Amino acid sequence: MKLALLGAGRIGQIHAANIHHHPRARLHAVADVNAEAAKSLGERYGAKASTDIDAVLADPALEGVFICTSTDTHVELILKAARRKLPIFCEKPIDLDLAKVDTCLAEVTRAGVPLMIGFNRRFDPHFRALRDAVRRGEAGDVEMVKITSRDPAPPPPAYVRVSGGIFRDMMIHDLDMARFLLGEEPVEIFATGSCLVDPGIGEAGDIDTAMVILKTRRGALCHIDNSRRAVYGYDQRLEVFGSKGMLQAANPLPTTVTRYTREAVLSDKPYHFFLDRYPEAYRAELEHFLDVAAGRAEPLVTGRDGRAALVLADAAHQSLKLGKPIAIPPQGERN
Amino acid sequence: MKLALLGAGRIGQIHAANIHHHPRARLHAVADVNAEAAKSLGERYGAKASTDIDAVLADPALEGVFICTSTDTHVELILKAARRKLPIFCEKPIDLDLAKVDTCLAEVTRAGVPLMIGFNRRFDPHFRALRDAVRRGEAGDVEMVKITSRDPAPPPPAYVRVSGGIFRDMMIHDLDMARFLLGEEPVEIFATGSCLVDPGIGEAGDIDTAMVILKTRRGALCHIDNSRRAVYGYDQRLEVFGSKGMLQAANPLPTTVTRYTREAVLSDKPYHFFLDRYPEAYRAELEHFLDVAAGRAEPLVTGRDGRAALVLADAAHQSLKLGKPIAIPPQGERN
Amino acid sequence: MKLALLGAGRIGQIHAANIHHHPRARLHAVADVNAEAAKSLGERYGAKASTDIDAVLADPALEGVFICTSTDTHVELILKAARRKLPIFCEKPIDLDLAKVDTCLAEVTRAGVPLMIGFNRRFDPHFRALRDAVRRGEAGDVEMVKITSRDPAPPPPAYVRVSGGIFRDMMIHDLDMARFLLGEEPVEIFATGSCLVDPGIGEAGDIDTAMVILKTRRGALCHIDNSRRAVYGYDQRLEVFGSKGMLQAANPLPTTVTRYTREAVLSDKPYHFFLDRYPEAYRAELEHFLDVAAGRAEPLVTGRDGRAALVLADAAHQSLKLGKPIAIPPQGERN
Amino acid sequence: MKLALLGAGRIGQIHAANIHHHPRARLHAVADVNAEAAKSLGERYGAKASTDIDAVLADPALEGVFICTSTDTHVELILKAARRKLPIFCEKPIDLDLAKVDTCLAEVTRAGVPLMIGFNRRFDPHFRALRDAVRRGEAGDVEMVKITSRDPAPPPPAYVRVSGGIFRDMMIHDLDMARFLLGEEPVEIFATGSCLVDPGIGEAGDIDTAMVILKTRRGALCHIDNSRRAVYGYDQRLEVFGSKGMLQAANPLPTTVTRYTREAVLSDKPYHFFLDRYPEAYRAELEHFLDVAAGRAEPLVTGRDGRAALVLADAAHQSLKLGKPIAIPPQGERN
Repeated sequence: MKLALLGAGRIGQIHAANIHHHPRARLHAVADVNAEAAKSLGERYGAKASTDIDAVLADPALEGVFICTSTDTHVELILKAARRKLPIFCEKPIDLDLAKVDTCLAEVTRAGVPLMIGFNRRFDPHFRALRDAVRRGEAGDVEMVKITSRDPAPPPPAYVRVSGGIFRDMMIHDLDMARFLLGEEPVEIFATGSCLVDPGIGEAGDIDTAMVILKTRRGALCHIDNSRRAVYGYDQRLEVFGSKGMLQAANPLPTTVTRYTREAVLSDKPYHFFLDRYPEAYRAELEHFLDVAAGRAEPLVTGRDGRAALVLADAAHQSLKLGKPIAIPPQGERN
Repeated sequence: MKLALLGAGRIGQIHAANIHHHPRARLHAVADVNAEAAKSLGERYGAKASTDIDAVLADPALEGVFICTSTDTHVELILKAARRKLPIFCEKPIDLDLAKVDTCLAEVTRAGVPLMIGFNRRFDPHFRALRDAVRRGEAGDVEMVKITSRDPAPPPPAYVRVSGGIFRDMMIHDLDMARFLLGEEPVEIFATGSCLVDPGIGEAGDIDTAMVILKTRRGALCHIDNSRRAVYGYDQRLEVFGSKGMLQAANPLPTTVTRYTREAVLSDKPYHFFLDRYPEAYRAELEHFLDVAAGRAEPLVTGRDGRAALVLADAAHQSLKLGKPIAIPPQGERN
Repeated sequence: MKLALLGAGRIGQIHAANIHHHPRARLHAVADVNAEAAKSLGERYGAKASTDIDAVLADPALEGVFICTSTDTHVELILKAARRKLPIFCEKPIDLDLAKVDTCLAEVTRAGVPLMIGFNRRFDPHFRALRDAVRRGEAGDVEMVKITSRDPAPPPPAYVRVSGGIFRDMMIHDLDMARFLLGEEPVEIFATGSCLVDPGIGEAGDIDTAMVILKTRRGALCHIDNSRRAVYGYDQRLEVFGSKGMLQAANPLPTTVTRYTREAVLSDKPYHFFLDRYPEAYRAELEHFLDVAAGRAEPLVTGRDGRAALVLADAAHQSLKLGKPIAIPPQGERN
Repeated sequence: MKLALLGAGRIGQIHAANIHHHPRARLHAVADVNAEAAKSLGERYGAKASTDIDAVLADPALEGVFICTSTDTHVELILKAARRKLPIFCEKPIDLDLAKVDTCLAEVTRAGVPLMIGFNRRFDPHFRALRDAVRRGEAGDVEMVKITSRDPAPPPPAYVRVSGGIFRDMMIHDLDMARFLLGEEPVEIFATGSCLVDPGIGEAGDIDTAMVILKTRRGALCHIDNSRRAVYGYDQRLEVFGSKGMLQAANPLPTTVTRYTREAVLSDKPYHFFLDRYPEAYRAELEHFLDVAAGRAEPLVTGRDGRAALVLADAAHQSLKLGKPIAIPPQGERN
């Protein structure tokens, strides 16, 4: 399957490598506004390189598109690809503006092409195994979900300023995971937070330490905590508690080596960041997209899922501003 | 040191056994409205037994009092013991009515006797080691605290009806632990919850599944979750996250035995309930009280701590009822 | 049950404290050649103190004896107690001379008194749970047993010189544990070792680092390793492997606290030494002796078990000297 | 780098896939006596397929060879490749006959080509991290090494009959690991074992349960245990104990998911077998071979290492037969 990659940045490079190594996929073309970035990545994997996205999309050989450009271009590129009737993979979020998202998804639906959103954590083998166990009923009726998600170091305030805020930029992954695990839609969210890590983030109008509680119609509760700085590494853990027990997914560690010394017993720290932590997830995500593009599977993460996470992130943002819980409008129950 | 035990119920029996085995303490008298209970416990440990608390307190040989009766009698007994100038240990909570608590504490202060409240978890070796590490700065500035506290099985609805509700009856321990770990007072609390475990609890006007977020003046956040039913046993865990790292206290297990079978790898479940989980805590609590009564230590858990936890529990209750966060009035910074 | 304690040294003091606190036992008398030691311990627990063991044993009120004196006096004291028809608890080993042990056990049998040997580890809750699981068949047919046993620091060479060597002094506990777990008698032993920790131990004619392999008639194998110095603390672990799986007992840790730092993830070290590691074992050992003395139970560790462990230790010693495996003479299958 | 793969069986297929996906390598040709196997693998990765090894080796484009055929053909193929001056990777063992190995290695040395032996476990990230820590001195002076290695299920007796026995076929990996970790050569080995798993293995003249103790000149001790059947999966663990502490490498697990149920706490079993357990090791092995072939690195596993492990396996075999420890002739200290 011949794929075009739009956006040759950090996440685009991950997808490019995985596409190159996949037996069923080929990296056909790379487009980036930065000619050097496009050329460098194209050369590495034997793909055409261009700064002209329209030309790339016009290539009749193309069988699918990966959109890994900056968020503000996602909707436009999704629409172009949809008009070309190409299966689309788009990194999260679709857009920061819900109205634009709705217009976009409506057109995608009319075009009848599959659209898959890059919530990579759904494809992590540890989280996936936990979720599958939950769906098999191993926790019984879900009563509580707890999600911990902490980055190793804060982004620069300049990035924060255009990021849409911690809820839309960072917690959106966890809000999607909450939906994935709860198995029903939240009806209320309460968010609070502080700027404790970097005053520059506060000056940029954002917080860097956040806690959220979601509640579903049935009364299940979900807690999420986020920090922009965990000195011990990328901290990504899940807990699901229910009538039949509890399931936890801990941080995988680089090695199983333990050191017993005169002072203490030491093990490895968690992986440093998402590139080290989620390589299998990115590969499984590609695998799934190829199945989706080939018509052999429904997307595990639809445009509607992308929209639903954004709705929750917006509501969290509003809750923080207003200092009270916010009701979530019904969205349908697909997750 | 000759001690009188008021209340020969489940928790009173624990204290009686510990007092009996302590080299510096002697169980001098046991009083209970149930003559049979008093007599049985008195005989077991060679202590005088009585149904007349006033007579017991009048004994000039007495050097300290353990109050383990039902909550509604605590204030009256504290006041009697205070008038007798006896060092007082009282099980939590002091009372469910804050005004009564305030009157009581004022009289205790005037009497000049030490009063220690039975927040036993502060004396658990695992939790104590974690808190000491936090105080030594091992987590750096505290940014998040997370407390999990789940009982193995729900109490009967009849008990729930008079318990003051899950926040005053169960989470009060965790609210005290939050203050113990945060090192500063919460200024806001948001509470939510559901009745998912036993409809009878809902009919009794209470919830059985709860989540809370506290915020301090400095902006540190604290999450607490409670459930009245964890099928795998008593689940009591702490996590403190800060600028220098994270500290966790996990559930201790009865044995270190692991079983590798054809199906899975199995370890022990957590202890069943507080009597199995906290025996060292009760012993250390007594040890500390003896030091306090001998004038060698200030109480680690004062009447003010008892009051502060109740204030938080009341605010949580109010937050649940009103569906919004509640501001906590300043209480002074002792914890 | 009124008990006399012979020997007021380190291990005697442990038993004294446990006897004192046990509801069914009373420390009636303490005897030690060191008058000061006897007196001090006697005063602490309200027991008669004496340097005259014969006088102590002559007391008609006596109902049982704990022998905690130096090894070279064990046989003589066992025989005196046996003549007095008293139930006997004796610390390991019975004696370093097998012929003396045999004579002693024959007299004990004739006297018809129960004799229990202080292999305390059989009573450790972790090891006991593992062994019970093995006996229930959870590992299936036992094929391999592995025992790790390392002391935190070497004893002084002067002690080593009179200790009987590492196999009789230290590994004898593990050889007993091997029999306890294997469920059948070893028929062959190979031992090897080195002096790597303290040259003074080598000069005293002993080794400080040892490995042994035992083989049973059925062909099950058992590995034991010993070191006189583990800088991270007392290291005591078991593994049983069989046709249905594997069971392991790990080192229990003082607390469950884990620290996540910029450098590593740290947990507690194991307990420092046997007094910290085995307090429950000593209490359970006493509990069992009281049952034995009261005729309610057969000893879990008989004189024959004491003899059998010594036979293995002697054979290990011989194997090391001769540099080849040694056949173990049949001893009957009780363990 | 254009590589030829000789032998398209199970292990050959692993190397073929890794070569295909490696950016610096290309699978140029596949040869196997089984035309169908060669063709199928060649087609999958776009490589020439042949049953004529000589023709494959004659191809002037060739830059390196992977020998993955049956053991009895290794020497002949190594010699052919050496004459062609090609860098050689050969699966273990070189041969079961030490004299043939010596002749072979002498010719390889004369030919001046690098030869690397497939002791894949040296490249496992967990084991490699442990060994690197040992070399950095984190355990201090090495005093004990313990290696556990158990297969999930026994091979068919027909295979056992031609395998050279458990020491040459299975434990040879662990004997190499012992040398890798000890940092000096063993001077003595004692081996014992039993047939407990499959009587057919005993009828084939072999054992299925084995324990070994090695001793180095300096007196360090090493224990290895092997079983042909572990119902809980492939069990591969290391422990190094020394003057400064202990290092352990545990079994990595497929996921970090833990399940808390009414009955127990469950985690994943270890991986099922070497294909699942060692994928990174095979990739790192290839990476290293490419460096070796390019003249950028010395082989981490030389022909001499292959020989040394065989010497130990032979001595273990002899020890089992003779029932006594066997002295190992000096081999030089490279490992």
